[in-house]
Amino acid sequence: MTVSLSRRLVAEAAGTAVLVATVVGSGIMADRLTDDTALALLGNTLPTGAILVVLITILGPISGAHFNPVVSLVFALRRELSRGDAAAYVLAQIIGGCVGTLAAHAMFDLPLLQVSATVRTGGGQWFSEFVATFGLVSTILAGLVFQRAAVPWLVGLYITAAYWFTASTSFANPAVAIARALTDSFAGIRPIDLPLFIVAQIVAGVAAMGAMAWLLKPSAKA
Amino acid sequence: MTVSLSRRLVAEAAGTAVLVATVVGSGIMADRLTDDTALALLGNTLPTGAILVVLITILGPISGAHFNPVVSLVFALRRELSRGDAAAYVLAQIIGGCVGTLAAHAMFDLPLLQVSATVRTGGGQWFSEFVATFGLVSTILAGLVFQRAAVPWLVGLYITAAYWFTASTSFANPAVAIARALTDSFAGIRPIDLPLFIVAQIVAGVAAMGAMAWLLKPSAKA
Amino acid sequence: MTVSLSRRLVAEAAGTAVLVATVVGSGIMADRLTDDTALALLGNTLPTGAILVVLITILGPISGAHFNPVVSLVFALRRELSRGDAAAYVLAQIIGGCVGTLAAHAMFDLPLLQVSATVRTGGGQWFSEFVATFGLVSTILAGLVFQRAAVPWLVGLYITAAYWFTASTSFANPAVAIARALTDSFAGIRPIDLPLFIVAQIVAGVAAMGAMAWLLKPSAKA
Amino acid sequence: MTVSLSRRLVAEAAGTAVLVATVVGSGIMADRLTDDTALALLGNTLPTGAILVVLITILGPISGAHFNPVVSLVFALRRELSRGDAAAYVLAQIIGGCVGTLAAHAMFDLPLLQVSATVRTGGGQWFSEFVATFGLVSTILAGLVFQRAAVPWLVGLYITAAYWFTASTSFANPAVAIARALTDSFAGIRPIDLPLFIVAQIVAGVAAMGAMAWLLKPSAKA
Repeated sequence: MTVSLSRRLVAEAAGTAVLVATVVGSGIMADRLTDDTALALLGNTLPTGAILVVLITILGPISGAHFNPVVSLVFALRRELSRGDAAAYVLAQIIGGCVGTLAAHAMFDLPLLQVSATVRTGGGQWFSEFVATFGLVSTILAGLVFQRAAVPWLVGLYITAAYWFTASTSFANPAVAIARALTDSFAGIRPIDLPLFIVAQIVAGVAAMGAMAWLLKPSAKA
Repeated sequence: MTVSLSRRLVAEAAGTAVLVATVVGSGIMADRLTDDTALALLGNTLPTGAILVVLITILGPISGAHFNPVVSLVFALRRELSRGDAAAYVLAQIIGGCVGTLAAHAMFDLPLLQVSATVRTGGGQWFSEFVATFGLVSTILAGLVFQRAAVPWLVGLYITAAYWFTASTSFANPAVAIARALTDSFAGIRPIDLPLFIVAQIVAGVAAMGAMAWLLKPSAKA
Repeated sequence: MTVSLSRRLVAEAAGTAVLVATVVGSGIMADRLTDDTALALLGNTLPTGAILVVLITILGPISGAHFNPVVSLVFALRRELSRGDAAAYVLAQIIGGCVGTLAAHAMFDLPLLQVSATVRTGGGQWFSEFVATFGLVSTILAGLVFQRAAVPWLVGLYITAAYWFTASTSFANPAVAIARALTDSFAGIRPIDLPLFIVAQIVAGVAAMGAMAWLLKPSAKA
Repeated sequence: MTVSLSRRLVAEAAGTAVLVATVVGSGIMADRLTDDTALALLGNTLPTGAILVVLITILGPISGAHFNPVVSLVFALRRELSRGDAAAYVLAQIIGGCVGTLAAHAMFDLPLLQVSATVRTGGGQWFSEFVATFGLVSTILAGLVFQRAAVPWLVGLYITAAYWFTASTSFANPAVAIARALTDSFAGIRPIDLPLFIVAQIVAGVAAMGAMAWLLKPSAKA
């Protein structure tokens, strides 16, 4: 990779910021416009799926477009990203995510600094985060092997589906989860509920890496 | 095909599991969030279409991404899959589908084991399943001939449409139908209604195979 | 073209049948499930756009996937289709469209033979049909020049938009209009309103052909 | 570029006209059909995103498919468009946009000449327009470098998202904003609110050009 680390970190921070601004902003917009929660979730889902396709397409060639500490961790464990770069990526993602929340608040004339009161806890939620992240990492790893050019679409479509098939609406991303703790709006999550979400996400990422190593390994016998 | 049978069966089981988890899970999510049934169906449709594009893209190169006993049957009849492999595929799809239902229940904190009470019977329903499956198999067979790379999209878009243009919301898949009999939620179907759904699906698959053999046969005369 | 005429006509009839079954069927489904007309229109729009991408992709290589007498007329005027073939195409499209309406009624357990009572008349409606058809034919002709492989997507997306930006919800197709006169459901149109819809569509198709001939003509000077 | 200026200007005017007719027309349609504002916004968003993919694909090879004075300004500043051509482009876009509003009114049997009374002012709105336009120009410039063929999709998806993640629903285009001042319907904006929208859009376009010049500059060191 010939792109300087500073540019890559800006790409990771900017991409995560726009992703979070979309998740939080569209949640605020949808929540203001309707009393129907399914419609609000749809107004949250479609923009998120759409912006992921855009962000991964235009920033992927610069930084890899992880926007997600679990993804950076997996690439570090696979030795495709140095430990130092991975740590810097994670920091850039968290900072970018928080800036995204602030930007959404500024656009919607809301207090910039907020703390979420939305309870997201319990076995169903944690299992949902495990499933969501396992699927996300599997999609990325298999997509890179079979259809690299389609990965932006695969991730956008995967998240579009996962918003609905998991009980947690699929955070699947520690940086985004932290940023969403800083908004008391539709997309929020109580800070106290963060640790177990993040544990489930990390465990799922590592598990998916192992599962895909087996499933995608070339084999000569039928 | 150089992929071992064990990996192919895991791909079929996993793909069918995620497909069913999406159908059942998004149905539960949508049903919880709104009283408007059209909106619930939309919240069921978009995730299903989206996940099909993802699953067929990332698992197609491993197992062919059938996720559907009728599709495996058609490929067996066309001698593109051995009888033994086809039987194993069907078993993997049914087991995977049932695991998908369990996973959806676990994510939404529902009792794992359920039986559906949703009546889906009558001539309109059976004709709907015939039309839905005929169209699905035709789409796959023609897509493989003309635009192999687009098949994941074609299937995803076809099912998106078929959810709405058939009275049955297009099961079009015996493994998915069986798995959906195990949930008493939005996507369910009474076990007693399964046999005629499956008959209609199988008949339609074989009919579509014949129709496409004629329509797609190269011809030299105008 | 090496495909026999009989296969091409079956492709035109089958494609138009599925298109109309989608338009009419999804309209019935949506109308049954909700009282909100915008939601019903959305449940009508998304399936129609999706099935167009599928049908044009899988039947385009056989017949050109016109499914529309105005499109066949334009290709005949451009000498890309013989007069006799064009006449046969139009007949196949009209028959196919009517079969599509019957199939939708059969799936939804409705009386097979119906006549629409939905009034669609007046200057706004006719101008809407002119705009809708002008845009559709322009999209096809320009798409064939610049991005042939993308035409199925362009048509699907164009119709998705045109459902909403025209006051008539964009019939833009005489065969589909005739078939929709045979259903007294969401997508219907009174038979007496057909002639001026069809006139507007034909005039728009010819006008678009002329406009595109000028706009797309290669030029050497800046 | 070997396309004559007159054809390029017609392409810019026609494309902007259809874009505005879609924004305004789908807003009128949606607003008539539902009382739920989120649903109306969805009925406004999906057609706009869809038509952008179509218009940029079929008119991009002729004029570049700017449809937006800020985009033409950026290309002029980058010396990829002469000043004279840029000025003519902007004029064509404004005229085309206004024609688009008139066409929408004609289709929906509304008075052709209207003035909007919809208030869109304040810091949140202006910051929204800055963010929306910064993102749009960044998407275009990065997309042209990394995935030129995907630009129509990137713009369509970006606007789909930006409708929801900004408080202003993302005008991001002075010509479209002016045209939307001429309709007293869902998509309108008071003429008095135009100047600061346009200032925010121009400042954002120039800022994005600078940011992308740095981010996309090839670098040799890691």
